[in-house]
Amino acid sequence: MSKTLTQIGKNIRKLRNEKDWSIRHFADLLETDSSYLGRVERGQQNVSIKQLEKIADLFSIKVIDLFK
Amino acid sequence: MSKTLTQIGKNIRKLRNEKDWSIRHFADLLETDSSYLGRVERGQQNVSIKQLEKIADLFSIKVIDLFK
Repeated sequence: MSKTLTQIGKNIRKLRNEKDWSIRHFADLLETDSSYLGRVERGQQNVSIKQLEKIADLFSIKVIDLFK
Repeated sequence: MSKTLTQIGKNIRKLRNEKDWSIRHFADLLETDSSYLGRVERGQQNVSIKQLEKIADLFSIKVIDLFK
């Protein structure tokens, strides 16, 4: 598994939990599929920069912050 | 255009030029298409984390370094 994708997934899950959003609500906000986001959060899904930009915008952070 | 993709593209072009690689040689190393890489370098191509990992590995840097 990709270390980078695993780290990004953990960060996204943490951000989502801090907002107390269900994964379904998070998927609705992103207009995407909750099982896809589940895989992203588990680091099991390759993801694009444009998708990460949407996620970063939702949390009012920069894309690079998802890598830390 | 995506600010993040534009920054990533500039960084990749800089790294490639520092190695004095043609874009064709760079594409061969990545086993991909040179016109695709041209669009990536111009920030006109959405790109995935796994693709960025391959590029970062080629330059022996971390993916996050492509965002700075």
